[in-house]
Amino acid sequence: MSGMPDLRHDPLSDRWVIIAENRAKRPQDFTAAGSRRTDRPCPFCRGHEGSTPGEVLALRPEGSPADGPGWRVRVVPNKYPILQATAARGLPAGEKLFASQPATGIHEVIIESPRHATRTSQLTTEELREVILTYRHRLGVARRDDQLVYGLIFKNVGPQAGATIEHLHSQMVGMSLLPTQTEQELRCAAAYYQSQRACIFCQMIEQECSQDTRVVARSDQFVAYCPYASFSPYQTWITPRTHSSAFDELSDAQAMELAAMLGKLLSQMDQVLDRPDYNYLVQSAPFDLTVHASYHWRVVVFPRITTWAGFEWATGCCINPIAPEEAARQLKFTSFL
Amino acid sequence: MSGMPDLRHDPLSDRWVIIAENRAKRPQDFTAAGSRRTDRPCPFCRGHEGSTPGEVLALRPEGSPADGPGWRVRVVPNKYPILQATAARGLPAGEKLFASQPATGIHEVIIESPRHATRTSQLTTEELREVILTYRHRLGVARRDDQLVYGLIFKNVGPQAGATIEHLHSQMVGMSLLPTQTEQELRCAAAYYQSQRACIFCQMIEQECSQDTRVVARSDQFVAYCPYASFSPYQTWITPRTHSSAFDELSDAQAMELAAMLGKLLSQMDQVLDRPDYNYLVQSAPFDLTVHASYHWRVVVFPRITTWAGFEWATGCCINPIAPEEAARQLKFTSFL
Repeated sequence: MSGMPDLRHDPLSDRWVIIAENRAKRPQDFTAAGSRRTDRPCPFCRGHEGSTPGEVLALRPEGSPADGPGWRVRVVPNKYPILQATAARGLPAGEKLFASQPATGIHEVIIESPRHATRTSQLTTEELREVILTYRHRLGVARRDDQLVYGLIFKNVGPQAGATIEHLHSQMVGMSLLPTQTEQELRCAAAYYQSQRACIFCQMIEQECSQDTRVVARSDQFVAYCPYASFSPYQTWITPRTHSSAFDELSDAQAMELAAMLGKLLSQMDQVLDRPDYNYLVQSAPFDLTVHASYHWRVVVFPRITTWAGFEWATGCCINPIAPEEAARQLKFTSFL
Repeated sequence: MSGMPDLRHDPLSDRWVIIAENRAKRPQDFTAAGSRRTDRPCPFCRGHEGSTPGEVLALRPEGSPADGPGWRVRVVPNKYPILQATAARGLPAGEKLFASQPATGIHEVIIESPRHATRTSQLTTEELREVILTYRHRLGVARRDDQLVYGLIFKNVGPQAGATIEHLHSQMVGMSLLPTQTEQELRCAAAYYQSQRACIFCQMIEQECSQDTRVVARSDQFVAYCPYASFSPYQTWITPRTHSSAFDELSDAQAMELAAMLGKLLSQMDQVLDRPDYNYLVQSAPFDLTVHASYHWRVVVFPRITTWAGFEWATGCCINPIAPEEAARQLKFTSFL
């Protein structure tokens, strides 16, 4: 084993698993009981820029030197990447049951504040707006890389959400292979488009807004709602009300509105659920724009207050103990702009 | 909302989600920090038979009264079921985006000891053998129910594995609908059988035994190995070496051998991983025996020492930081019969 991540194919699910022995070496901010360890300095705080690989981008005063102080948002390569920029090789011939390939792509960390903030609700709307603009920029850069077909932005807050570092950050993975679950979602959306001549997401938004039983908030450009078949409690999607497939199509004005809505939603969750661990995802179309008409980007926010048990692992069928209608009722907010 | 579990269809993944508000009312043995609460008596211990619904089966001295003392293994309906035995109705017509049906089926709890045991490694081989024979019995009963198409046995140990009750128990769910992930696995196995005229599991076993880099243990009838594309660290499958699709085909002699191997495997995991939370599944063929030639039952054991983060939720692509070859090397054992 070289320690290089390895993509292995599971012939029983037709999915890929990433075997990444390098990930076992990650330092952990959290103890097994979930509290914060205090015996090591935070690698993401201002003044500790040397603890990370050199920055690939930073929002900082013009002329200030890279990897020095003064930055507001900072993007660095992940020190323990799940994907690396090496040349892909094909599947070994004749190895039907045990097929693998190197896990190629890029894996970046977006450090959201020079302060030791630990939750999105601690950012100002202006700070969150700059984070969102950074997402847009990094997705745009990944799109221009010929080796990559898809970019995903995700955020892990707290140990129950899979975070190992407490300091507020997001991650971007650019992949040379479309994940099976993403392919499945694209296939379902494309099939709907074929049969109905309409974007499935646009139709959902229309129905959600007219039924109004699962809507959490609305603005001119966006709607936040708890989807009908939410796979986890209090899951909320924020999505543009007019059709847009790729997140990097976001306008400057939309970035401001999205920052206000996302920030308020996460503050609401902090209040209603007493500061839960959570994830959010920016799910955008793959870089191949043939899916433009049938796909629609969204931010998916989900607090981690339940745990998958044996049933969910075996069946892929999630159990959600809070009806999305009830979740929306509790989370609902109006003024935020 | 009636509080009855509701199966909702997610049109973007073609999967079902179970909205089960009754599950939010479950009592919790564990605090948020994962330790055991001591302020309520255990409902599964001997002497507390009245805390559960009446037994549907118990291994107990002949003539001893139901729901009284003396039992060794006891099966009761789950008080907070994810599926209930009501008549199914079809999908509402014309509701393409918001389709649901009542979640029908059975949900049983198998209490594995009258003592307050909390881990499989605390059972004797003879006790575990009786638990396994109970699995076989309950699957056989579910198979004879015309409303059901599939039965799954699973076990959750510890809060990280989704358990809410500490006392050692397993669960059986009998379903009137095949879960999407199970269907996918059957489809992959059937496609392999079509093209290769061989059971994919039998071929894996043959290759694993000849390569011998991921084998944990062997006996006359069974092999335990860490699969090539393990979706989680230290995941181990125990499976019969000769073809068998349905777990309830298990012979009495096999039950003894399986108890010895499973018990030893879980003791090894306790030692190597310092008593991790864990799940295991008994994955058996659906009741429709047309899949007999292409499917092969297995017990899937997986300690819960990593957490799904945003990446895994978005892509369905698991990250495993321990190569299965390394996991097998650490878990390997020989004498256990």
